[in-house]
Amino acid sequence: MARSLDAVGPGLERLGNNTVYIGKKPMMTYVLAVVSQFNVGSENVIIKARGKSISRAVDVAEIVRNRYVTQAQVREIRIGTERLPEEDGTSTNVSSIEIFLSK
Amino acid sequence: MARSLDAVGPGLERLGNNTVYIGKKPMMTYVLAVVSQFNVGSENVIIKARGKSISRAVDVAEIVRNRYVTQAQVREIRIGTERLPEEDGTSTNVSSIEIFLSK
Repeated sequence: MARSLDAVGPGLERLGNNTVYIGKKPMMTYVLAVVSQFNVGSENVIIKARGKSISRAVDVAEIVRNRYVTQAQVREIRIGTERLPEEDGTSTNVSSIEIFLSK
Repeated sequence: MARSLDAVGPGLERLGNNTVYIGKKPMMTYVLAVVSQFNVGSENVIIKARGKSISRAVDVAEIVRNRYVTQAQVREIRIGTERLPEEDGTSTNVSSIEIFLSK
């Protein structure tokens, strides 16, 4: 079974607006979103993605750490499986990732 | 900087042939490779991928855990950046992932 993505450890606060969801916009949109979160004072930013966007989530985390917020560290990475309902009433499983960055 | 992918913690043995590299073959090829590693007695299997294959690495880990080796757990997930040389002498950065599964 997938580990619950709701149980967070110490220092891995889920503040509602410190999560950046990776979609299909240009990569730098998400890099900037993460950097902005750190710049407004967040010590933890969570990068979330599902399906094919998972690779981009890793790219975003790496670009942020290597180029923009070099003191940021990967605190934890979690993977899971989410069930997405389809229009025809069936459902598909899709993988997900959460990358916890802290500075 | 990317964390070194060579430093492994206790129980995260790198035995040479317990690593499954994710490429462009059908997904079940890699699922079977991981399941086979566990079946021949490995307690740890490492799933590695770069670039766009990262999403598939997560899919493989989730399918193995949810359907085939339900006692397998994700021990650690590491991400990094690798520099790939291009034919024209330049180089590109590509993200990488390592998923450590243990049973």
